Amino acid sequence: MSKFDPVDHSHRRRNPLTNDWVLVSPHRAKRPWQGQVEKPQQNDSVAHDPSCFLCAGNTRINGEVNPEYKDTFVFTNDFAALMKDTPASEQVNDDLFTVEAARGTSRVICFSPAHNKSLPELPLPALEKVVQTWCDQVADLSKEYAWVQVFENKGAAMGCSNPHPHGQVWANDFIPNEVRKADVNQRAYFDKHASALLLDYAQKESASGERTVVETDHWIAVVPYWAAWPFETLLMPKFSCARFDEMNDAQQADLALALKKLTSRYDNLFQCSFPYSMGWHGAPHNTDVTEHWQLHAHFYPPLLRSATVRKFMVGYEMMAEPQRDLTPEQAAQKLQALSDVHYNEANG
Amino acid sequence: MSKFDPVDHSHRRRNPLTNDWVLVSPHRAKRPWQGQVEKPQQNDSVAHDPSCFLCAGNTRINGEVNPEYKDTFVFTNDFAALMKDTPASEQVNDDLFTVEAARGTSRVICFSPAHNKSLPELPLPALEKVVQTWCDQVADLSKEYAWVQVFENKGAAMGCSNPHPHGQVWANDFIPNEVRKADVNQRAYFDKHASALLLDYAQKESASGERTVVETDHWIAVVPYWAAWPFETLLMPKFSCARFDEMNDAQQADLALALKKLTSRYDNLFQCSFPYSMGWHGAPHNTDVTEHWQLHAHFYPPLLRSATVRKFMVGYEMMAEPQRDLTPEQAAQKLQALSDVHYNEANG
Ligand SMILES: O=P(O)(O)O[C@H]1O[C@H](CO)[C@@H](O)[C@H](O)[C@H]1O
Ligand SMILES: O=P(O)(O)O[C@H]1O[C@H](CO)[C@@H](O)[C@H](O)[C@H]1O
Repeated sequence: MSKFDPVDHSHRRRNPLTNDWVLVSPHRAKRPWQGQVEKPQQNDSVAHDPSCFLCAGNTRINGEVNPEYKDTFVFTNDFAALMKDTPASEQVNDDLFTVEAARGTSRVICFSPAHNKSLPELPLPALEKVVQTWCDQVADLSKEYAWVQVFENKGAAMGCSNPHPHGQVWANDFIPNEVRKADVNQRAYFDKHASALLLDYAQKESASGERTVVETDHWIAVVPYWAAWPFETLLMPKFSCARFDEMNDAQQADLALALKKLTSRYDNLFQCSFPYSMGWHGAPHNTDVTEHWQLHAHFYPPLLRSATVRKFMVGYEMMAEPQRDLTPEQAAQKLQALSDVHYNEANG
Repeated sequence: MSKFDPVDHSHRRRNPLTNDWVLVSPHRAKRPWQGQVEKPQQNDSVAHDPSCFLCAGNTRINGEVNPEYKDTFVFTNDFAALMKDTPASEQVNDDLFTVEAARGTSRVICFSPAHNKSLPELPLPALEKVVQTWCDQVADLSKEYAWVQVFENKGAAMGCSNPHPHGQVWANDFIPNEVRKADVNQRAYFDKHASALLLDYAQKESASGERTVVETDHWIAVVPYWAAWPFETLLMPKFSCARFDEMNDAQQADLALALKKLTSRYDNLFQCSFPYSMGWHGAPHNTDVTEHWQLHAHFYPPLLRSATVRKFMVGYEMMAEPQRDLTPEQAAQKLQALSDVHYNEANG
């Protein structure tokens, strides 16, 4: 029997942030695809769309008029999943039927007035403003809430219901599942190694370079060793930083640069407006013990082979565990081979 | 402040099989939808398609010819995610980079020769044959493998790449994430209560009826109290049964009936071939300790409001926790209000 080679042989890798595994089946990439094809996503062509609920000066569905905003614009979601005044529920002590009231709020962040420019196509100062808005929102909402989830759903394939580039921020009076797991697993690593899991990891990836997609002065984005989505990336600071408010000005500006380069490589991969869900995890706000935490962003993009063929996380993945068709190193190589200048800027 | 009412107020419910929570936001159902719309799924119209890789007598992509099968037909997936002869990997003891070789096999189960009939439209004897095939496959593969995952991806929206009704069975020499969690949580419940979690739960749901979608002599399908997907269901035996091989003939035949009724209600909901991923969990085969286990099937269907508007489990759901827009009780009521005779049989 031949020697085990991760480029040829099925294997599992462990995600140290969740303690879950992912099944890697590199030989499966050869399989033909006769299933659903996506509409290749392109940005809308107009800079201002009179029928868009998010464009400056337009009227939203609830009758409110958007201001003539010039950079970012934040408002409370007209159909928020959480409300701040939910009454408390009775304590139910039952191992089968457990419920608790949930309080919070949801806001929308329009990244810029430009209806037709997603993150990689914004000029750097506009991206810096997006990062500043994330910092401001977290600072504001963390006064009241234990958890503030900053995220973006980009593209119709990721359930985005409005093409105007925007993200969201949902605040919770509870610690959601994924955050609880990241907390527990970073804590266990810190207790064992007396160092932060993701700072150690960022340093090892920076030294190896094998899975690095973008590296700037202060930030690194890699296809993590345990990536589940084909071109998943993890964006991490190379400095100690548990939360948004621990960055200095240079580190914050450098984050905007890292974001521009990463999302440009994504768009360049299949020459389309690359869909993904992305979101930030940092130390929760119901505690002062943050030594085990590093701030980081996950990018989960669904496309697999082209602008029209995606990976489906379905039957086996839902019932058993995530499965991927190319190794994280192969995905990183494809992203490394691209320019970090967006194809529209290079052409125009 | 008003009293907490789960029909009006956001809340979280705990899934005792995973120990994860789901966020329920009932007031959010009013939100308009301007995002991606699905193609309403209908079964193909022809009973035999000469270009289908799964129809009887046709040639598959690797040159093999399918037999003139009359009921179910099982073959090894031409692009399996797992192979039986993967060499062992070196032991890596590293808290950041953990890998292990994975062995297994993947098979395809064609449910019947009819290219145009999915489960609810098969006559009962054909459905009984599907159940028998699941039992046979698990019996066969469990001789060699610790875990045998039986599942079906139905519909293009769930990544199904061939419209000929079929399921799959993937065998693993490891215990996948979701099974490990179900094992740990059922074990903890059994240790505390000296009874099986899902047998207690089936009895309570049967007594209440509030979330019941289908109940036969031996089986019950409910929208579980902790459902994440809008019309998610959990199909459970009402008798003690850890694995497929513990059913008697009557219980097995009755499962075919429960499946026919459940999938007929699903198709009737939006008068379409209702997409879902479904899969079976039973006691793993690397142990004789099965007292805490009950065999059960999860159905995860994506549709939310119509044959064309689905729920997306994206940004907040991926980064924080699943969120749903109607309560499980509301979903159960909608399914209860329908006939359990398929609309094509009722019309024809
Ligand atoms: O095996 P299929 O039907 O070609 O593929 C489908 O089911 C598999 C198992 O859930 C998934 O890994 C694939 O992403 C999905 O497209
Ligand atoms: O809030 P939106 O963009 O309308 O909705 C989108 O993002 C939400 C948060 O991830 C999800 O719950 C929805 O399913 C999705 O369609």
